[in-house]
Parts: sequence; C-alpha cells; structure tokens
Amino acid sequence: MTNHILEHLDINTAFAREVLVRFIRDALTRVGFERAVLGLSGGIDSAVAAYLAAEAMGPQNVRAIRMPYRASSQGSLDHAQLVIDDLGIQHDTVEITPMVEPLFERFPDITDTRRGNVMARERMIVLYDQSAAFDALVVGTSNKTETLLGYSTLFGDSAAAIHPIGDLYKYQVRQLARALGVPDVIVSKAPSADLWPGQTDEGELGYTYDDADQVLYLLVDRRYTLDEVVEEGFDRRLVERIWRTVRLTHYKRKMPVIAKLSQRTIGHDFLYMRDWGT
Amino acid sequence: MTNHILEHLDINTAFAREVLVRFIRDALTRVGFERAVLGLSGGIDSAVAAYLAAEAMGPQNVRAIRMPYRASSQGSLDHAQLVIDDLGIQHDTVEITPMVEPLFERFPDITDTRRGNVMARERMIVLYDQSAAFDALVVGTSNKTETLLGYSTLFGDSAAAIHPIGDLYKYQVRQLARALGVPDVIVSKAPSADLWPGQTDEGELGYTYDDADQVLYLLVDRRYTLDEVVEEGFDRRLVERIWRTVRLTHYKRKMPVIAKLSQRTIGHDFLYMRDWGT
Repeated sequence: MTNHILEHLDINTAFAREVLVRFIRDALTRVGFERAVLGLSGGIDSAVAAYLAAEAMGPQNVRAIRMPYRASSQGSLDHAQLVIDDLGIQHDTVEITPMVEPLFERFPDITDTRRGNVMARERMIVLYDQSAAFDALVVGTSNKTETLLGYSTLFGDSAAAIHPIGDLYKYQVRQLARALGVPDVIVSKAPSADLWPGQTDEGELGYTYDDADQVLYLLVDRRYTLDEVVEEGFDRRLVERIWRTVRLTHYKRKMPVIAKLSQRTIGHDFLYMRDWGT
Repeated sequence: MTNHILEHLDINTAFAREVLVRFIRDALTRVGFERAVLGLSGGIDSAVAAYLAAEAMGPQNVRAIRMPYRASSQGSLDHAQLVIDDLGIQHDTVEITPMVEPLFERFPDITDTRRGNVMARERMIVLYDQSAAFDALVVGTSNKTETLLGYSTLFGDSAAAIHPIGDLYKYQVRQLARALGVPDVIVSKAPSADLWPGQTDEGELGYTYDDADQVLYLLVDRRYTLDEVVEEGFDRRLVERIWRTVRLTHYKRKMPVIAKLSQRTIGHDFLYMRDWGT
C-alpha cells in the first residue's frame, strides 16, 4: 500500500512532550494527588507514559508495576526493567498467575480471547489497588490507534484516570518515544500483547499499524469519506473494515447508558466536567 | 429529620416497568444480542434488574451469577436463590475467594476498603467473562442514589453495558420491587454490600437512604440550592456533606480524560452515541 500520508502524522515532539507533561501534572495536582501508578508491560506505550509521568511528577512519585503472567516473555520483563532503571522510578512486580488461574480452571473451555480479557482486567485490579495503597492516580497507557480500533479490554488496560497518549497514533508514539529517550530495543520491537509466544498486534489485527494510522488519520482527523481514502491509494476492503471496527467498538469509548425516567438523569442532563468536585 | 419530600419521589410503577423493560429489550437487540448476564447479590437492586431483564428477554435468556466470597452471608445466597427460583432464569455460582485471596496474601496490610474494591472488580471479571461465554450483555444493577454518591466501585459493580435502574432512587427501587413481585424478605431487609457480617450501607454512609434520596432529589432533580434544601427541614451539615460527595465522586460517572493534541480527539470532538455502529 502507500505511505505518503505518514508525513502528515509527524508531530513536533518537543511541543507534544511539554503539553503532555503539563497535562499529567495538572490533572493529578488539581484533584489533590502527587503520585502516579502505571503498569509497565515492556512495550512502547507504557514506556512513553512512564517517561512522561516521571518528568511530570518526579521519578520518586511514579510507581511502575510489572504484572507478568506465567506465559509472559522474559523479554517483556527485561524491557520494563530498562525503563525502571533509566528513570529511577519506584517499582514492584505482581504476578497475576495465581489470581487468574482459578477462573481458568473453573471454566476449562475458556477461549484465548476470554483469557486475555481476564488477564487485562486482573492487571487493572492490581493497578487500582496499588493506586489506593500509594495515594496515587492510575495513568493510562492507551494510544489513539488502539482506542479507535477498540483493540483493548474494556475495564482492563483501557481503565485509567487519565490518558496522556490517547491522542497519539502508534506512529506518533514512536516519534515521541525516540525524543524522550526510550531505549531503542523497546521502540523498534514488534508491538505485542504478549499473551502467547510469537503473538504480535499486527498479526492479530491483519494489517500494519502504519496502514491503520494513515487510514484512521484521514477518516477521523481529516473527516475524509471512505471513497476519498480509497482515492489516496488505500485498499477499499481495508478502509471499510477499519471504519466498521471503529464504529462497532464505540461502546468502549462511552459510559454505559442509563435508562431515563426522571427530570434529570446522570449522563443525559446531569453533566459536569470529570473534575467538577475540585 | 423530615420525610415530607418522599411523596414527590413516588413513581408510577406500571409506567416505569414498561419503560425499563422496553429499554432493556431495545438496548440489547439493537446491538445484536438476545441474552443478558447479571450478578445476583441477594439484594434488592440486582433482584429488580433480574425481574426486568427476565420480562424483557424471557427468563431462558437471562443468566444470573452468584459470586460469593468466603465471608459472604448464607442469607445473601438464599435470597438470590429465591429470585432464581421465582423467575426460572439460568444461573451459576462462581466463588471469587480463590481469585481474590492471592492478592490479599501478597499485600497483607491491605485495608477493608481495598479488599471490598478488589472483590467488586473480581465480580466484574467473572460477569464479563460469562457474558462472552454466553453471547450476552452485562446488565447493570446500580441505582441513582449510589451512583450519585459514588457508593460503588469504579470498574467493579458499576461496570455494565446498560443501567436499567440507574435513574431510580433507592426509595423508588423499593416501590418498583414491590410492583414486580420481588420477595418481601429482599425488599424489606437492610441494604448491605455484605463485605463483613453486620455491615449495612446506611451504617457505612452515616445517614439513611430516605434522607439521602430526598436531599439528592431536591439538589439534582429539582436543582434546589443548598440553602433551599435546608429550608425544607434538612440538616445543613448533611446537605453539604451529600453535595460534596456527589461532586467529589463525579469522576466515577465520566470517561477518563484524553490529553488533546490533534484536530480531533476521542471524547472531545469525536463524539457519537454509544451504539453508533449499529
């Protein structure tokens, strides 16, 4: 396919870094917090979030949790350790294996997808519990590509208080990662949820991040029609498939709907900013 | 205190029942689902949700999951069984003890609050996993009182695809429960999260549901000022405390904020209905 749209995705990394560092600092301090907790998978997204959080709050106020499952790769753990060592942030390692295995044993016919969702949600439990223990907020690690594709677990890895890199496509996360000094082995490896050996995001999705990023950018940021994206040189089936995925996963990006009965209903006409109370 | 506002909360139970049954049916079928899964605690909220779901989808399409912890009361299990037997819905019982204990052992200084949140979130994991197994949506059981007070666990008991009784105050849930034929022992017992023996919601909150319902109704539905609520005969400290709680817990009722960098950002200017894709 074509890559000529990628240059439109180039970001001013110095500007993005400044905005996002300030965003994290403001979002936390405004609601009375000084500390951040985040899950460190060994991948690029959580690494970038960690670098930004450490710059925003100081490394001593950032706590990174590694949460391996029995089948997680040693490489992932090692890469997370590189980030911990480079930043000098607080850290802990909490194995989720003993928490998820009882459910897998209770339902022996459980599928890989269900297992992956259980693991992602178990990690959310650990992170939120650690945030309570350390008087911290959970900083999210989701990027714009995976959020638009719904390529994440609801109430799992997408669960957080704030999403600093949620408006950056994967291609842009890579640019910012290089500017932040994220170790190259993390920036250049194939993205993976690390649920089984050899798994890669792009293998599972069936298309590359570069293709997805360009198509999403044109559809979402530039409001192109499907026809207009095809005219730019992208395969019609891919474009239609991506757009369908964006639409079908929109429920993951919205609060559940409350049935309206009264004059004033939460989510309908009882509407305030998230940090209204402060 | 005073109870003269309660009469303003009286609902037409036949109308509410019709609206909510239709809401559940529409919300599920519109996105291609015929089945509902819900957690049955033995309390009034999940009982009402179960009666409504069974009426909406047919009892054979509703699967109730009891998820006791080691310390949960036998009474709760028995009351849930009353609902299962009365409705003839599908059911299963999944003990969460083996899933939560490893985390409690890993952090021996864990507080009761943290334990309660871990349990609520573990139940979410079981429910969402069961919804995947049975091609069903998770029907929520949160009411308006607890949602406004934030008296629930984020990504725990408040996690669901839809909230049929989320616009009904506790007082109104009781009225609807009676109209639906929920067993009286469930309607009339003291509400409790059942985290330890003798725990009651009202004991933990420090005020009664009737007081909270009236104050919330005046503040939220009627848009009274704090002074105007006090003039109706409610204690100023209680009114201020409740309003402060509503404001401080608003983050639980909104999606996490995404740092804006691009022309079009999820949650800022990329906005569609939750079921946009269908």
